[in-house]
This record gives sequence, C-alpha cells and structure tokens, in this order.
Amino acid sequence: MDKQTIGQYLIQRLSELGIAHVFGVPGDYNFNLIDAIEENPSTDWIGCCNELNAGYAADGYARVKGMGAVLTTYGVGELSVINAIAGAYAESLPVINIVGMLRKSTIDARKVVHHTLGSDYNVFKEIYSKVTAYSAVLSEENAQDEIENALSVAYYQKKPVYIGIYDDICNNPIIITRGKLQEQRSDEKELQEAVEHIRAFVERAKNPVIISEFPILRYGLKKQMQEFIEQTGFLATTMVTGKGSVDETSENFIGTYCGKLLESETAKIVETSDCILGFGILMSDLNTGCFSSELDFSNVVDIQASSVTLDGKTYKNVYMQDVLYALADKLSAHKNFTPPKNTDCGYSYIGPSDKLLSQEFLYSFLQNYLKDGDIYITETGLATLGSIPMRLPSNTIFCTSALWASIGWAVPACLGTALANRSKRPILLCGEGACQMSYQEISTMLRQGVKPIIIIINNEGYTIERLLSRNPTDEYNEIAKWDYTKLLEGFSGECKTYKVWEQKQFVKILNKARDLNKLVFIEAFTDTLDAPVFAKKFAEYARIASHSPQLP
Amino acid sequence: MDKQTIGQYLIQRLSELGIAHVFGVPGDYNFNLIDAIEENPSTDWIGCCNELNAGYAADGYARVKGMGAVLTTYGVGELSVINAIAGAYAESLPVINIVGMLRKSTIDARKVVHHTLGSDYNVFKEIYSKVTAYSAVLSEENAQDEIENALSVAYYQKKPVYIGIYDDICNNPIIITRGKLQEQRSDEKELQEAVEHIRAFVERAKNPVIISEFPILRYGLKKQMQEFIEQTGFLATTMVTGKGSVDETSENFIGTYCGKLLESETAKIVETSDCILGFGILMSDLNTGCFSSELDFSNVVDIQASSVTLDGKTYKNVYMQDVLYALADKLSAHKNFTPPKNTDCGYSYIGPSDKLLSQEFLYSFLQNYLKDGDIYITETGLATLGSIPMRLPSNTIFCTSALWASIGWAVPACLGTALANRSKRPILLCGEGACQMSYQEISTMLRQGVKPIIIIINNEGYTIERLLSRNPTDEYNEIAKWDYTKLLEGFSGECKTYKVWEQKQFVKILNKARDLNKLVFIEAFTDTLDAPVFAKKFAEYARIASHSPQLP
Ligand SMILES: Cc1ncc(C[n+]2csc(CCOP(=O)(O)OP(=O)(O)O)c2C)c(N)n1
Ligand SMILES: Cc1ncc(C[n+]2csc(CCOP(=O)(O)OP(=O)(O)O)c2C)c(N)n1
Repeated sequence: MDKQTIGQYLIQRLSELGIAHVFGVPGDYNFNLIDAIEENPSTDWIGCCNELNAGYAADGYARVKGMGAVLTTYGVGELSVINAIAGAYAESLPVINIVGMLRKSTIDARKVVHHTLGSDYNVFKEIYSKVTAYSAVLSEENAQDEIENALSVAYYQKKPVYIGIYDDICNNPIIITRGKLQEQRSDEKELQEAVEHIRAFVERAKNPVIISEFPILRYGLKKQMQEFIEQTGFLATTMVTGKGSVDETSENFIGTYCGKLLESETAKIVETSDCILGFGILMSDLNTGCFSSELDFSNVVDIQASSVTLDGKTYKNVYMQDVLYALADKLSAHKNFTPPKNTDCGYSYIGPSDKLLSQEFLYSFLQNYLKDGDIYITETGLATLGSIPMRLPSNTIFCTSALWASIGWAVPACLGTALANRSKRPILLCGEGACQMSYQEISTMLRQGVKPIIIIINNEGYTIERLLSRNPTDEYNEIAKWDYTKLLEGFSGECKTYKVWEQKQFVKILNKARDLNKLVFIEAFTDTLDAPVFAKKFAEYARIASHSPQLP
Repeated sequence: MDKQTIGQYLIQRLSELGIAHVFGVPGDYNFNLIDAIEENPSTDWIGCCNELNAGYAADGYARVKGMGAVLTTYGVGELSVINAIAGAYAESLPVINIVGMLRKSTIDARKVVHHTLGSDYNVFKEIYSKVTAYSAVLSEENAQDEIENALSVAYYQKKPVYIGIYDDICNNPIIITRGKLQEQRSDEKELQEAVEHIRAFVERAKNPVIISEFPILRYGLKKQMQEFIEQTGFLATTMVTGKGSVDETSENFIGTYCGKLLESETAKIVETSDCILGFGILMSDLNTGCFSSELDFSNVVDIQASSVTLDGKTYKNVYMQDVLYALADKLSAHKNFTPPKNTDCGYSYIGPSDKLLSQEFLYSFLQNYLKDGDIYITETGLATLGSIPMRLPSNTIFCTSALWASIGWAVPACLGTALANRSKRPILLCGEGACQMSYQEISTMLRQGVKPIIIIINNEGYTIERLLSRNPTDEYNEIAKWDYTKLLEGFSGECKTYKVWEQKQFVKILNKARDLNKLVFIEAFTDTLDAPVFAKKFAEYARIASHSPQLP
C-alpha cells in the first residue's frame, strides 16, 4: 500500500470519530480533499447548494452523531460558511471546518490569485481563530500533530475547529509523530474534593433540584443523567438549551425552566430549592425567560464542562462526565427522597376542532404526535418558542439553535440530522421566512433520498419580528410571496406535498405522513399575527428587557 | 423638527452619496435603523431572502451607482454577509456594511443574549477590521465623526467599511462635531513631478499603449479615459478586471489583454510596447492569463489609485483622477501618433445554424446582441470566461467578479444593478451551479418589479470545475437536478420563462426578450463538457500553473 497522504489521514481520522458524511462545495483548492473523501470507503461527500447550508448541515449532523465536518474552498467558500461555524461555537458543537487552501508555492511567490483579497493570505485563518476553539494550517512537518490537536479540542471541548490545508501538500505522505487524541482526564484530587464538597452540600439540602443542560447532550450523557435522576429521586428540569437532555415523561421532570415565562410551579420549585445541581447552566436571555429567572447562585452547584463551582470555590480540570459518574456513586443514599412533583407541565391537547389552524393548536398537537426517539428540529422564531413548553417523549432528539438563533439553519440542519441516522425520519418545524434563506437544501434531501417530515408555517412574513418591532404591520417584516409546495415540483426526487389550513386536515395529513416512505412537505397556514401564548409572553418580556414600548 | 437621530443622520448621508436602496434582512437589533430608512423619503429598504444575497446585491448596486449599502443584525446577520463584504474589498467596491448591534447596556451588564458567542461582544467588529478598509462602532460622542470617517474611506478608497450601531443609541440625537467627507487631494508637488516624469517618458516612447483597469470604472473615469485615448491616439486595452473601462468599439482598442490566453496580436503589441501607461494594473491570475503575460515593468508607468511608480521611483499621494486629468493636459501633442491597429478582436459571429446550442455560439451571439449602454453581468465559471474575449458595445456596463470570484454572486448582484438604474434591463449570464447558491433572489426581483433578462446555462453541473479537477466526470461536480423554469412558477410576479436547446430558438427568444416588459428567464442547455475555447485554454494554463496533469 502506498503511504497515506495528509488528506487521506485527515479523512480517515474523521471516519474513526464517527463522521461518515462530509458536507461542502467543491472549489479549485479543495479537489484533492474531496478525492480523499470519495476514496475512503467509510466517508461520503455530500455536495450542498452553498457553503452556509453545508455548515448548517454539519451542525445538524453533529447534534445527532456527536461530530460533523464541512469542507470548503479558500476565501470565498470558507467565509461563506463562517456564520454556521460561529453558530457551532455558540452552541458547542464539534464541527471540523476543513478548508482547501491555495498552493503553498503560490503564497511563497506572493502571487495574486482568485479568492484572495490581494495579498494577506493568512487573514482567513486569523478570522477563524476568533470563532473556533483551535485553528491550524497544516505544514508537511506538523500535519499529523496539528490534526490531532484540532480533533482533540473538538472532541473534548465540543467546539468547532479550523483545519486549513495547502493544496500542494495535501497529497504528500503523512509523517506520523505522535499518538492520536490527547485524552483529557480530570485531575483526580480536584475531582475528589469537588465531589466531596458537593456531597456534603447535597446532604444538608431539603429540596434539591437538577438542572440538566446542553453539555449533557453534547457529551452524550443523557442516559447517565436519567439514571442519576432516577437513582437520586431528585426533581429535574432543563432550560431551553438543555431541552431533550432528560426524559420529560419521567415522574421527576417538573417542566422546562424558563424563569417567569413558563409554568410558575416549575419556577417556584427551582427558585426555592436550597440545592440546585446545575449541569451546564447557561444564563442566556432565552434560558432565563428574558432574565426573569431568579436563581440564587449560593444554592447552585455549578458543574460546567470542565469545572465545578460551589460556595465561591472553583475546582478546575474536573470534567462533567467524571463528576456525574462520581456523584452517582456518592449520592445513592438519597434514593428515598420523594418531594412534591409537578406533573401537569406541557401543552394540554384536546384534539382537533373544526377550526382553522392556530399556532397554539400546532404545538399541542405535535407534542402528542412526536414518538419516542424522534428527531425534532425547530427553527428560530415561533417554531422554537412554541415548542419550548412541550413535554417531549422520552428519547426525543430535540434540535434547536437557542443561543446563536440564526434563521436559515433549520432546513440544512434537518438534512444533516437525516444523514446522521438514516433509520429515523426527522420532523422539522420551520417558519417560511427562515425557510426562504436556505430553501434549496430540500433539493439535496431529495437527491440524498432522505425522508424527513417538513412542516413550514406560512404566516406571511417574519411574525416573531412583528411582535418585537415597533409596529406589527411594518412592511419590512413582509417577505416575497412563494408557493412553497409548488417550488418542490422544480426539484427532482420523490416527495409528497400538502397545503393545510384546517386542524382536522392537519391531523389527518400528519398521521398519514408517518406511513409515506418519502419526504413529506407540509405548508401549514396560520394567521399573520397569531402566536403561541409563550411567544407572546416572550415578546412582552423582551420589550420590558429592552425598554421598548409595549404593543397595545 | 426634532433633532436628527444618529440612525437618521447615517441614512441621510447615504442618500446624499447616491444610495437610494439599502439591502438587508431585519433582526431584533436593527429595527431602529430600518425605521430610519423607511422614514427617509430618499431611501428604500430592500428586504432580501438572506444576508449573503443582500451583500451581493449591494455589490452589484455599487458597480452601477458608485456606492452601495447593506444592513444586517448583530452576529448572525453580519457573519452571514461577510463573504460579500470581503468580495467588495477584493473587487474595490464601496459597500457600507451597517450592523444593528446589541444594546450597549446589554454589553455593559455582560449579559449572555442570542446572537452572541457567549461573551466577547467585540469579536465581529474585529473580524470585520480584516476585510474592510475602516471599521467603527459608534458611540454617542463619536457617531458623526466615525460615520464621516467611514464614508470618506469608502468614497475615496472605493473599499467597503463597517459601521456598527448599538441599538440603544441609534435613536439618540446626533451631535455634529465636524464637516462631512474628508476630501482627498493629491499632493501638488508630487503630482507635478510625477506627471512631468511620465511626460518625459512618453515623449521618448515609440509605441505607447494604455492599459485601463478597474479603478477607472470605480472612480467613474471611463469618459475621461476615452477622451484621453482619443486625444493621444494611443492604443488601448484592458485586462479582465478592467473590462468595460474603455470603448471596445473604438479604433484604438486592441482587444482584451490576457497574456498568452487571448489574441496573440494584442499580447504582442502590449508586450513589445516601450511605454505602457497602466491605470490600475492588477497582475492577478485571470488578468495575466494564468501568469502567461510577460510585462516588462521597466516599460510600465504604474499609475495606481493613489500612487505612481516609474523607473523605480514611487510618487505617493497622487490620485489617479488627478494624474489622468494632468496627463490629458500635457500629452495633447501626441495626437498624430497612429500606430498599427488590431481591429479583428472579439468573437466573429456567423449567425445561428440548425444545430444545438454550443458554448462558443452563446458568447459570439451575445456579443452582437448586447446594445450600447447595456448592463451585462457574468457569473464566475464559463459565463465569465466565455465573455472575456467579447468585443463589447461602447458603453456596456460589464459586471463580473474576476478576483474574488465567488459563485452565487451574480443573481443577487443582478438585482442590485437593476435597482441601481431602473431605466435599464440588466442581462445576466450565469451557470446553473452558481444559480443554485442564491436562486431565491429572483423572487426579490419579481417582488421589486425589476425586469432583467436572465440566462441560466444548464450543463448538468460545475463544468469549469470538471475542466480543472482530476477527472471531468467526478461525481462531486454533479449537482441536484432542478427544473429552473418550473421553479419560477413558485414565485409570484410577472415573468416569462423559456427552455432552449437550439441556436435558432435562442436567437428568436433573445430578440423577443427585448420587447417583453417583464422579467425574462431563459434556461439554455449546453453539453456537460462543452466549453468556449478560451475556457479550455484557461484550464490548460491553470493546470500548467498548478502542476496538475493535463487532461487527455
Ligand atoms: C441570519 C438571521 N437573520 C435575521 C434574524 C432575525 N430573525 C429572527 S426570527 C426572524 C423571522 C422568522 O420568520 P419566520 O421564519 O417566518 O417565522 P415566524 O416568526 O413567522 O414563525 C428573523 C428575521 C436571525 N435570527 N438570523
Ligand atoms: C462560493 C464559491 N464556492 C465555490 C467556488 C468554486 N467554483 C468556481 S466555479 C464553480 C462551478 C460553477 O458551475 P456553474 O455555475 O454550473 O458554471 P459552469 O462552469 O458549469 O458554466 C465552483 C463550484 C466558488 N468560486 N465560489
């Protein structure tokens, strides 16, 4: 066998880490890398319509598979995808951002070539150093080392990394200088001390509560978390970004915690708890219900990805996974602790009426419609806001971009989730305004033969923005009029499309969709200013937070 | 009248500089700025389907109107548009990139809110400092000063600039502290010396040639350049990026200079000239015909936007416009200089045959089809490569992105050019692969009632990449199959669509298109591996330049 090239080594390593699909767009400087992907029997190249969409797809892929990758070409390609990579940074997703760069010889000769700004060749890597956790441009000598460095950061820190490869070294043999991932282990002493500190703190507590957050999802600890909850008997909640990290059908689940914006019973339990075991608490605007939450941090055990803070003391180099396992060992004694439970969280569904679709109906129906193990993707806007109060089935893989919140994400992310697990059919809920941003990636779904159930809510414009801006009828929240189902006729591939106005019709179609072995695309119409209760409340609180006048 | 706000002042200044349309997408942090645009009777808000497209549209707009503007929201919006702004930087286009930022109070309180990476709030401005010529975040105190600084740089340097405005200072009154643009004038002494140096150099020359390049377009000097050519009688050419800056029907025009890739007569004249008056020569890969040009720089008077270099001596702070005017005064004596002329440049057109469309036919026909004053936009790929050899009508506004060369640019750029001058109907030539990147902006054209003639070349994939990559049939140069004309049925607005396979049909439709008072969309089919001669030669030279094996 010929010696492995640098490109081949990188692709091989991706596949070893579970990445079987690399998203991207070809360009003059990345052909060698695409060749390496195509040659590797364990990896497939997924050409997307544009780079930003490819990045979003890799994000969706990482949410299901644990890691994703995108490959673009120097300058034009990599800058087109940067918003998705910054999103992966904000949302803590290990997306490997690979860039096929100019030839090194071109740079050394300082030639002006296409896709450059004219001279400074290093500028894109510098830019990426600000939105990734690690960025490297490979040389022949450091290639293996830098690949492993980057992959280690992605794998352990769950953040995107940047790997740039000169076109003219890509096919050179890889020089092996070290082992593979650089394992991260907790500092044993710190870990023991932290856990002992927590144990003592919990021991004194009367009404402990667990807040399980997004790192539990990213580190694949959902099962362990659920066992921990059952074993301790503690009540459990998540904030928005952690939704899906605990079994919401469990007796211990008290509803999603979102400050004063959601069930007051949930907020009361959390905010009066004398011991909040927080696994990755993020006090963002959406998580805190526009900063309406009142968490007393002196009661919080603040367990983050690589640290624990308690009573003003911070333990460093202790990893969440190790803390969770160690606590599970220590806290078994608390098994018989049975505090009051809040079981009436979530939408109450009363079946379809003869009426037209309403936002509130949509979410209450979908809550019942979702099945154990479904992938459920919601786009920023009403789709996400309306889904937050849902009580989800046990193993729902709930995907939303609640911090970065870039619209246009959901359609390509759905493509990514679908490829990450072909045995599932993702269910996507997306506003039509967001859908316009990246609509073309539905053609990639058809091309790849994946079969999500896509629900586009057509309410004639950016409704969430109407609720937040000065005047709900402002023209700039209108958008171009599209016939969304008709557009699908312009793509090739098997699918079934519907337009739906009525509740009963909606229920019928959704139930049928499960049986159709093809992509199902549903355009659901709701009133321009209709919004789920939670979204209205959110807008009201957001106005208060930004001192904007209340709408009449 | 109430005092003008910071937002209103900025928008007013844009309108004074000729910007009547601001492209963008609304977001929670830019509502106040959009309100200012809507309130100003001289500016219109043009909502686009996504931010990258809005940026491309502003680029196209600037190519016709001299300046353009795009407005996005913090984080997600601004990072989505960065590729277009970097493109404007590479292509020297003054695009004002305005960002509605978080509230200052949010940042001061270090709150984690949506569209942030979690903490570092300044990171996006820092990123933009690398791809713009000026970047500023406005404070109440410096707002007017920074707006004028940024606009001065854009106006005089023809580069994009970044202006970030905190949402909670946007509606505060503007404090006027200075005058408007900071005028740039040449250093009189340097200018005189430079011009005298040039005059003496030209005096000794036997066969002077003018290379007119993109700054002539950007600084609006085409008319002056043409007068200069006529007055001196010098032969004239452009490279690719300067195409459209001289009247190609003029007797003095010797064809486009592209190293050894185009008419050998042109190259001979240029490369044997003892005095090349270069107005903005850019030795990029495409301009030099993959570095096949052999310019002897000791014969070049290198006049750049703000400097002149001759005989190893550089004069600084002398502006191209001033140099051109001063030379026009000094060089009138050379009027009777009449060297040999090359008049048989351009495609020779022999009318349509009964055959199917071919790439070579397309360009030769379009060369004849274009009329004086047409806006002609070509997308990176075969469309641009095939158009380079064309001999264009006198006042063609030729728009292409020959340095940045980001595909997806052309469709939204066409929207921008159409709005920049509603009395013209732009003609767009674009590959279908590029078209997939930003197709949705055709719906914005329809919404805005602009009426370009759009020709999409469908050749089943990324043909130029097939010519450049290892194997022309590589799967990754295939793309999703779309029915491009059918897709238009999914948009609303008046248009007429055609699919064309034959030459005669094509001619008929194109001629009819001029009479139709609506958007015309033509899908023209050519063979997957068909390419114009120039593109094949380009690919061959590119392979040589990158040491790739030649295709059989
Ligand atoms: C890239 C990007 N641009 C702009 C925004 C601001 N934004 C947030 S939600 C939204 C409108 C979403 O409208 P739609 O998808 O129709 O959903 P609806 O609110 O009507 O349910 C916009 C423009 C954003 N979040 N991301
Ligand atoms: C944003 C971006 N991504 C990728 C590329 C690399 N690229 C250059 S041309 C091209 C293919 C263009 O194909 P098409 O538009 O169908 O035109 P054709 O060559 O077939 O005429 C690609 C992918 C690029 N220039 N810009």
